[in-house]
Amino acid sequence: MENFIFKSGTKIIFGKGGENTVGEHVVKHSHKVLIHYGGDYLKKFGILDRVTESLKKNGVEYVILDGVVPNPRLSLVYEGIKICKQENIDFILAIGGGSAIDSSKAIALGAVYEGDVWDFYSGKATPKKALKVGTVLTIPGSGSEMSESSIITNEDKNLKCGIDNELIVPEFSILNPEMCYTIPPYLMSCGIADILSHLFERYFTTTKSSVLSDHLLEGAMKAVLEVGPLMKKDPKNYDYCSEIMWLATVSHNGMLDAGRVSDWASHRIEHEISAIYDITHGGGMAIVFPAWMKYVKDENMKRFVQLATRVFGVTDDTDKEKVIEKGINCLEEFFKSLGLKTTLTEANVPIDRFEEMASKAVGDADHIGRFKQLKIEDIVEILKLAI
Amino acid sequence: MENFIFKSGTKIIFGKGGENTVGEHVVKHSHKVLIHYGGDYLKKFGILDRVTESLKKNGVEYVILDGVVPNPRLSLVYEGIKICKQENIDFILAIGGGSAIDSSKAIALGAVYEGDVWDFYSGKATPKKALKVGTVLTIPGSGSEMSESSIITNEDKNLKCGIDNELIVPEFSILNPEMCYTIPPYLMSCGIADILSHLFERYFTTTKSSVLSDHLLEGAMKAVLEVGPLMKKDPKNYDYCSEIMWLATVSHNGMLDAGRVSDWASHRIEHEISAIYDITHGGGMAIVFPAWMKYVKDENMKRFVQLATRVFGVTDDTDKEKVIEKGINCLEEFFKSLGLKTTLTEANVPIDRFEEMASKAVGDADHIGRFKQLKIEDIVEILKLAI
Repeated sequence: MENFIFKSGTKIIFGKGGENTVGEHVVKHSHKVLIHYGGDYLKKFGILDRVTESLKKNGVEYVILDGVVPNPRLSLVYEGIKICKQENIDFILAIGGGSAIDSSKAIALGAVYEGDVWDFYSGKATPKKALKVGTVLTIPGSGSEMSESSIITNEDKNLKCGIDNELIVPEFSILNPEMCYTIPPYLMSCGIADILSHLFERYFTTTKSSVLSDHLLEGAMKAVLEVGPLMKKDPKNYDYCSEIMWLATVSHNGMLDAGRVSDWASHRIEHEISAIYDITHGGGMAIVFPAWMKYVKDENMKRFVQLATRVFGVTDDTDKEKVIEKGINCLEEFFKSLGLKTTLTEANVPIDRFEEMASKAVGDADHIGRFKQLKIEDIVEILKLAI
Repeated sequence: MENFIFKSGTKIIFGKGGENTVGEHVVKHSHKVLIHYGGDYLKKFGILDRVTESLKKNGVEYVILDGVVPNPRLSLVYEGIKICKQENIDFILAIGGGSAIDSSKAIALGAVYEGDVWDFYSGKATPKKALKVGTVLTIPGSGSEMSESSIITNEDKNLKCGIDNELIVPEFSILNPEMCYTIPPYLMSCGIADILSHLFERYFTTTKSSVLSDHLLEGAMKAVLEVGPLMKKDPKNYDYCSEIMWLATVSHNGMLDAGRVSDWASHRIEHEISAIYDITHGGGMAIVFPAWMKYVKDENMKRFVQLATRVFGVTDDTDKEKVIEKGINCLEEFFKSLGLKTTLTEANVPIDRFEEMASKAVGDADHIGRFKQLKIEDIVEILKLAI
């Protein structure tokens, strides 16, 4: 097992009606917050009212900045930073899914920085401090509610970049599974694909000793495969929503894979697709992951056989190639059963900018990926497999 | 899924040589600490020296209180409290396993309390504050290094009582798997039995929707079953030690079973055995758990079948009784393979004080247990099954 440092300081408040208590949690940290979100559904379903009501009850002032969109934009982050500086705000309350939370984290970093917050995302600078962030999660999938990650799209440069830093781990996150009732089915399926991707990215490791983390990751994958189709049939079932919501958090808070190397190349590749074509991230992952698997499988066939047999229930036999192929097929069928596309063509993504995407994904480095190191030409081949 | 609040604020520093950095972690919280431990091995293997060296290097003063024994005694806790008050100490640094950590947590509670710290353990009072605690873990098993629990033996009253409170969650815990090299094989086996018990206690639930937590708990159990025998054969293998050390922590920090009811009756029963006969807790659990299982299995046969088939690899068939019996047999065989006793007779525990143990286990309540509610007479029957 590899050395590691693990701390997951987010307080999770899980259950019905949690948003009505948000003021009690905020007031321990701040008396003036920026509420940050996007989407009319928060007003339509009364979620915003319940949050502001609870803030008022606890004597917390607030300023609202809405307008967050999927693949959250740097321009809105700048706006949030400006408001925080002008209004002396010291806490960002995100309401939403990964986009609202990631955007809030970026504002939290930029509000106490003299330079351009993009410096942190482009790797030019390392943050020393940040405002505190709390979240009311409405769309599970990203895991951002308990993670140290934030990913922002620089729309001027067609770039999507991320940062990992413990400064932006949320203080608290309120998880009310009933929030899932408001999510359009396609977006929920994208969230489920994102969860599964987060598990795969941890699963495909070069670490030799990984008995516990293998079993934990496989266990979480099996739960996704079990609950996903149930959720699809009965999207307002509280228990299914609970499972998916907690799965999203657990899959990305760093505990299941502590002590092992992970591989985020497929995430990076997808970011370049969604940076240009603005498709939903989880939907993009359902296209990229099977292609990535087909391309890298020879790197460690034993691992792919283990996935196929332990998670997808493929019967092991002597023909390892076949077992692996069946496993990847099962994954594609799973995504399809959720109503997701598994090829670029089906998703109406043009196939003429592969070189550009691959080059951006690699950036200034020589390669991306750890399970298999991928150079520009490898990424182009993976994108071809996704046609 | 049940509502829950989860926060696990302990910073885990995992890897070789971690004890040499303890001063860096302590100094963020305190400049004068009580070092609390038991056992000559800490001196013999140079662990104590490495810890004090690191404290000195970081300008941290310390007072030492040794003498912790398995089933840690209230009398030593009183001594620690006295020292902390006299010496104005504000941080307890535990070195050891569950006993040293639990004793340290008790001192942390008592040092800022005017009354008798036993009030918290007997349920007479609820703590409002505590000193901070950090740990250098040397014996995995209890999970106390990342838990909110502390269990203390009141030797005058032959009572063993516990408290769960977030005030006593350690600030940091240093997990160096190499520490396992110093553990006598029998104690290591006891630790492994304790880990498995912590997983079973969470597994036997009355919560209906538990897809994810079932899979995670089963995954952790499978890891114990896989690594335990390897560890037995090759106790100084760094990777096996790593797996067991992290398993112990993960199994008891509350994340695997968030959102489900658990059942701690078997732990309570064992505490009454070890309170009188001073056997090692994990060794006691290897005796109590199979007996508890045999007694309660009819409460939810489906759950026992699931355990037998998914974890112990028993082939499912129409005779559920047989499947369950085979599962419990597998568990007993596993304990035996680790060199543990699975009956009171083998462990030389007299069998003439069952009524007394059962009565103490229930205490002032009407029953213990949630999966099946156990009254005094039920506990006596379980103890009889353990003969």
